Amino acid sequence: MDTINKLTERFSQFPGIGPRQAKRFVYFLLTRNKNFSEELSQLLLEIKNDVSVCTSCFHFFNETTSSTKECAICSNQNRNTDTLMVVHRDADFENIERSGVYNGLYFIIGGTVPLLEKNPEQRVRSKELSTLVESRASQNKLKEVVFAFSVNPDGENTRIYTEGVLAPVIKKYSLKTSTLGRGLSTGTELEYPDIETIKSAFINRQ
Amino acid sequence: MDTINKLTERFSQFPGIGPRQAKRFVYFLLTRNKNFSEELSQLLLEIKNDVSVCTSCFHFFNETTSSTKECAICSNQNRNTDTLMVVHRDADFENIERSGVYNGLYFIIGGTVPLLEKNPEQRVRSKELSTLVESRASQNKLKEVVFAFSVNPDGENTRIYTEGVLAPVIKKYSLKTSTLGRGLSTGTELEYPDIETIKSAFINRQ
Amino acid sequence: MDTINKLTERFSQFPGIGPRQAKRFVYFLLTRNKNFSEELSQLLLEIKNDVSVCTSCFHFFNETTSSTKECAICSNQNRNTDTLMVVHRDADFENIERSGVYNGLYFIIGGTVPLLEKNPEQRVRSKELSTLVESRASQNKLKEVVFAFSVNPDGENTRIYTEGVLAPVIKKYSLKTSTLGRGLSTGTELEYPDIETIKSAFINRQ
Amino acid sequence: MDTINKLTERFSQFPGIGPRQAKRFVYFLLTRNKNFSEELSQLLLEIKNDVSVCTSCFHFFNETTSSTKECAICSNQNRNTDTLMVVHRDADFENIERSGVYNGLYFIIGGTVPLLEKNPEQRVRSKELSTLVESRASQNKLKEVVFAFSVNPDGENTRIYTEGVLAPVIKKYSLKTSTLGRGLSTGTELEYPDIETIKSAFINRQ
Repeated sequence: MDTINKLTERFSQFPGIGPRQAKRFVYFLLTRNKNFSEELSQLLLEIKNDVSVCTSCFHFFNETTSSTKECAICSNQNRNTDTLMVVHRDADFENIERSGVYNGLYFIIGGTVPLLEKNPEQRVRSKELSTLVESRASQNKLKEVVFAFSVNPDGENTRIYTEGVLAPVIKKYSLKTSTLGRGLSTGTELEYPDIETIKSAFINRQ
Repeated sequence: MDTINKLTERFSQFPGIGPRQAKRFVYFLLTRNKNFSEELSQLLLEIKNDVSVCTSCFHFFNETTSSTKECAICSNQNRNTDTLMVVHRDADFENIERSGVYNGLYFIIGGTVPLLEKNPEQRVRSKELSTLVESRASQNKLKEVVFAFSVNPDGENTRIYTEGVLAPVIKKYSLKTSTLGRGLSTGTELEYPDIETIKSAFINRQ
Repeated sequence: MDTINKLTERFSQFPGIGPRQAKRFVYFLLTRNKNFSEELSQLLLEIKNDVSVCTSCFHFFNETTSSTKECAICSNQNRNTDTLMVVHRDADFENIERSGVYNGLYFIIGGTVPLLEKNPEQRVRSKELSTLVESRASQNKLKEVVFAFSVNPDGENTRIYTEGVLAPVIKKYSLKTSTLGRGLSTGTELEYPDIETIKSAFINRQ
Repeated sequence: MDTINKLTERFSQFPGIGPRQAKRFVYFLLTRNKNFSEELSQLLLEIKNDVSVCTSCFHFFNETTSSTKECAICSNQNRNTDTLMVVHRDADFENIERSGVYNGLYFIIGGTVPLLEKNPEQRVRSKELSTLVESRASQNKLKEVVFAFSVNPDGENTRIYTEGVLAPVIKKYSLKTSTLGRGLSTGTELEYPDIETIKSAFINRQ
């Protein structure tokens, strides 16, 4: 296989990219000047060295921006440590953080647990979460675990599995658990929402 | 203009129907047996006679299913009269009623008030709503008005206008007003929602 | 069932209309003045009387616009009778006629023959087409039959079946048969078309 | 700016990729093992060295697969040199070549000429095309130039401009020019095509 096809195959493994768009990426690179590809090549080498996984929340972060093994949020003294929000992926974390409405800590569980999954412990970092929750709760630093998962069957299944794994430590330290509230999203017309959404929207009226 | 084109033109005034689909409706009718068109023709005459507008909530209803001038909901003794939910249209009312989560009364305001509208009183039944609220509140039969409008700028503007019109009577009888709760709708992944939605979802966590 | 639901059910039988849009049609009619429904009701009665099926091409047409049993096209002396274009439905006929590029005659075969259909003769007017072709060819009035069917498997199957039924008369009078040309449609970028389309486009280059 | 954001910014310059998907690419790379990024990094360096632009048709090709300065098609003795097909981009060339219906030569003109463009010569390789056509025609090796451009206003404008530039040499050597044929594309129902498409489909019937 020649370089064009090798690179096309590589790009077609990127999330959401088919062979056609992968080929288009290759042609795009070929029409850029040499610097563009060289800098991209360099960044690809650097990123694996520069970026670490936070030992506390498992969020990817640039080590150069932090001297500790913990990310900027976990090591920030001004965050409210009472609340720990558990999300599927870094992208979820980023969107919530961007909104600026949450000042607590996070935990990136690293995936979803599909319905009927036989080895859920291989899909998500449930043990690591359990250890973190135990550690913080035993220091009186945690009061509530918020599950911020996708609003679909796999997200719900992830919550059920994770809550099960946490059950002993939740009970031991009398922690509160919660899930994000359902309701009307931006753009909704009342003609369309399902029962669950209308119910939550009515209960959460203000 | 011949009958085919006359009927096409008529159907193309139906909501969401362009001339092409209107013509398809005509051909559809031509390929049905004569009974189909005759029954449809008859129903069109009957509906204007059989259906009334409820004098209380302005919902369309079949008179034959009710002996009073009020619809089945307004005249139902088992509904909770403490709460009045104001919606744009009958279709909104129907979806909420279908969900089964609400047992109070409704008011169909009959439209939306677009931003910058100069004659909002011609767009929605704000006077009729004000009269109803005054009448029920004066009989101690109403405690809360719920605005269940579209979650978009026109829906928000409808709420602002309507709340302004109701302000004197709201104050006089110390009524509560509310809007349906924002939050995560079915299918949401946390990577995408806007600030307002995330904020509400966090506040309304449970 | 009350009138609102009866009429909703009727509209939801219209092509492409689900129960939700059908209900919207009913509310639309209820908010129009009485005249609108009455005129529509009247048109529905008239159309079955005013409109005939052309005895030659099976196209629906307003009798009032023609004194014969044939439609305006079949009875037009200026049309080129050498060519007969066979289409699925009236809507196809209309679009081709609207384009103004064809001056021959038509035949509405009335449907498609799906793959694996066991009773194709009940799906399309193949006998009537055969009779018409025989009649015109025997008077030396026909030279070519053009199949203008959908470019998909069912359209292709309709052509195969119809051509089979016509085979004896095609042979007897040495008629030509043809199908519409494949090629690049408006908006095409050359990155996307399938082999068949590219092949035809290259052969039919001009 | 840290490495994560630098790489995100780079990816968001890729065709069709917004900042959100670019960030997703970065997280995807971070969750792969180190080899994946290293190989990708290496390929990005190699591609600029391995891939050349054909001096004849301007198609990108791997030098390692060819010992000459011309691509495998231009240097293939079995291709029919009578016909030269001019396309916008490499992706167009690839799709036509994949179809296997064309055995002539190509020329990648490198872009489109938008309507009202003031410097069309900076958008497409019209001079290089003119030189190639002159050179081949003078050796009696070329009879027809096929314009295979997008079927839209910019594609048509590209043809008009290119044909103008070529006019002297076309005339001098009495070359034929052609454009790919219009007609029904796969999936078409006859109810929808525009006049131009129906006209071509009828003329090109077979």
